[in-house]
Amino acid sequence: MTVLTENVNVEEQAKLAKKAAKTLAVLTTEEKNEALLKLADVLDEEYESILAANEEDLKNGRQQGFDAAFIDRLTLTKERVEEFAQGLRDVAKLDDPTGIVNSDWTLENGLNVQQVTVPLGVIGMIYEARPNVTVDATGLALKSGNAIVLKGGSSAITSNQAIVEVIHRGLEQTKIPKDAVQFIASTHREATQQLFTMKEHIDVLIPRGGGSLIKAVVNNATVPVLETGVGNCHLYVDAEADVQKALAILVNAKTDRPAVCNAIETVIIHQDWLAENKAELTETLKENDISVHGDSTVVELIPNSVPAEETDWADEYLSKDIAIKTVADVAEAIQHIEDYGTKHSESIVTENEKTAETFMKLVDAAALYHNASTRFTDGSALGFGSEIGISTQKLHARGPMGLPALTTVKYLMQGNGQVR
Amino acid sequence: MTVLTENVNVEEQAKLAKKAAKTLAVLTTEEKNEALLKLADVLDEEYESILAANEEDLKNGRQQGFDAAFIDRLTLTKERVEEFAQGLRDVAKLDDPTGIVNSDWTLENGLNVQQVTVPLGVIGMIYEARPNVTVDATGLALKSGNAIVLKGGSSAITSNQAIVEVIHRGLEQTKIPKDAVQFIASTHREATQQLFTMKEHIDVLIPRGGGSLIKAVVNNATVPVLETGVGNCHLYVDAEADVQKALAILVNAKTDRPAVCNAIETVIIHQDWLAENKAELTETLKENDISVHGDSTVVELIPNSVPAEETDWADEYLSKDIAIKTVADVAEAIQHIEDYGTKHSESIVTENEKTAETFMKLVDAAALYHNASTRFTDGSALGFGSEIGISTQKLHARGPMGLPALTTVKYLMQGNGQVR
Repeated sequence: MTVLTENVNVEEQAKLAKKAAKTLAVLTTEEKNEALLKLADVLDEEYESILAANEEDLKNGRQQGFDAAFIDRLTLTKERVEEFAQGLRDVAKLDDPTGIVNSDWTLENGLNVQQVTVPLGVIGMIYEARPNVTVDATGLALKSGNAIVLKGGSSAITSNQAIVEVIHRGLEQTKIPKDAVQFIASTHREATQQLFTMKEHIDVLIPRGGGSLIKAVVNNATVPVLETGVGNCHLYVDAEADVQKALAILVNAKTDRPAVCNAIETVIIHQDWLAENKAELTETLKENDISVHGDSTVVELIPNSVPAEETDWADEYLSKDIAIKTVADVAEAIQHIEDYGTKHSESIVTENEKTAETFMKLVDAAALYHNASTRFTDGSALGFGSEIGISTQKLHARGPMGLPALTTVKYLMQGNGQVR
Repeated sequence: MTVLTENVNVEEQAKLAKKAAKTLAVLTTEEKNEALLKLADVLDEEYESILAANEEDLKNGRQQGFDAAFIDRLTLTKERVEEFAQGLRDVAKLDDPTGIVNSDWTLENGLNVQQVTVPLGVIGMIYEARPNVTVDATGLALKSGNAIVLKGGSSAITSNQAIVEVIHRGLEQTKIPKDAVQFIASTHREATQQLFTMKEHIDVLIPRGGGSLIKAVVNNATVPVLETGVGNCHLYVDAEADVQKALAILVNAKTDRPAVCNAIETVIIHQDWLAENKAELTETLKENDISVHGDSTVVELIPNSVPAEETDWADEYLSKDIAIKTVADVAEAIQHIEDYGTKHSESIVTENEKTAETFMKLVDAAALYHNASTRFTDGSALGFGSEIGISTQKLHARGPMGLPALTTVKYLMQGNGQVR
């Protein structure tokens, strides 16, 4: 293990990435796939150095008193590293998103015009705890012909650096220049901030992590940002909702994995449905250890529920807590989602097709569900293969982002002297 | 004419636009087209009020000593207003970019997934002199189901306001709420700056105008920006360039319309070609009144050329001046373009296919030309219909942006109780 140093030169690393991106951009699909397979093999072979580094992070984490869930996310094992390697092999199998001719036409004057997909160039990845992002993002970047500058969270810095060292040793045996993967080995906030304005060298920033990280990047970056992930998702249970569907979806969307962005945080319930089904709802919530924060109607009808405050509507719990609001109609539900939603995933349960249609048309979000759990907003669940994040913005890419989100286009014009 | 007032409430206007966008988003294509045709008729009928307002702007402009070219761009006539109206009729004929099902598949569990195009929501348009943008941008926004907040330049404010008043009178006779078109009637810089951070109400900002306007928006906005237009475009004349093609393209790309963004500003010439063709080149430059700023080789070989300074390579002339640089090979040309280009349009003239391929592959720009003039980077020249601007960024849209650039997507999931 190299000893960590704060002597990093972020700009120099970004420049090296940009230079490497040029070489990478013109490699063939086969050359890129061979490199990914090689990286997978090297990860499998050298897992011990990664686990040793991870031990250091875990020791530091425990000393700093991180909770068990955090330590769990940070922990690597031989099996987890094997999963990283398998992830790279899976990416190698995906279609190359570059070099695709989207359109091809010839003007009357004979000028041929092609719109072709090309890599973005250099991706700046700013992320928190989980070391798997280091491998996943690198694999997706390289497959799409992009160089990547990685800035991971401090708590996983030793693990991340060990992973990148293994990747670098692997890249030395491939056509991809090792400079195409840059790791900013700094725990200083300034190192991250330098990436925000490096428009000359970095083509896009992708923040992955909590709301405050994402907000810091969006508000301060002049480099274009692909905004990902904060999901204050809602389930609306309509007056005409089927009881079994509503309860099954509520439980799944809340408890399957409460800490992920496509879990629901608020259930909006039509007052008539609640009045009729309060007993079954109460029973289901209790069985699944879901704690309720509700409006006054809810507090009155559901035992053990506590009054919801403004933050209950606005923030993600990422736990088995839920906010419940009652409404008089679908319009009120839609307005609540507009006031508090993060344009991620929103679901309606109803047997009334017209009400569902209104909801799907008027709610402004990446993914809208009728009678299904919000948990399907996920690249692998939808069959996209690996994903680089879930976009909650409207430009460039919306919803789960696979390899095509890491490309742009070029217009290529072939002429024989055409002038206008 | 209403008297202009600085009592504007930008936030209130943006809110009204957002509210109107919801009504607009669910109108049918026919309803939107009928509205555009109505607006065209009303512009034709009420052109006199627009010309009267324009007179005021022209009077102010002359008093402030604006040059003839500027006054020319600002001047409206009955014919120009008729062109605005015709532009709206042309937009009515274009395909509706919303409601298109890009993909439709069903997961194994029976969940149906559709990716459908939808309007962005509210577009913030920040632009300079030409009043035609007021009509063109409004037409494209409404056709794509978007509300628009217009912030035009001070020099055309009376004309722009008169145009919007006519548009409002027209909209009252249509299904589109008149609040869908908001005009910020302020000459204060603060009014523009308020738009920069209005993420709650505005989905995208599109700046159109000079480099400093665009830079101000890109550097200060937290609302996502569609960056348009600055074109420091290059023509590379290779050692193996055909003389007639090279000279014809040079003259066209420089002199056809020197003030537009797809005109060239620098010619990079292979030293061997220059040595061989300096007489013919000199003659062509002279015949076309092109003033040359060159490197030392150029100054030596081309009579009347003056030494180029750093700004000659970096800035747009937007006039019949040109910078000329000599290089030893295509790699040096590509490096110069990377150092000074704005990723807009770049052209190579060569009979060597391999050199052309290298250029097209390695130069990072929206449009790359082999043996043709850069002047074709234009929505109407390429057959896109009207354009909202030419994107020089890589995310969302690159090159000329037609109606599809004003849309995003939604994933619509139809289930019968699916959980994960």
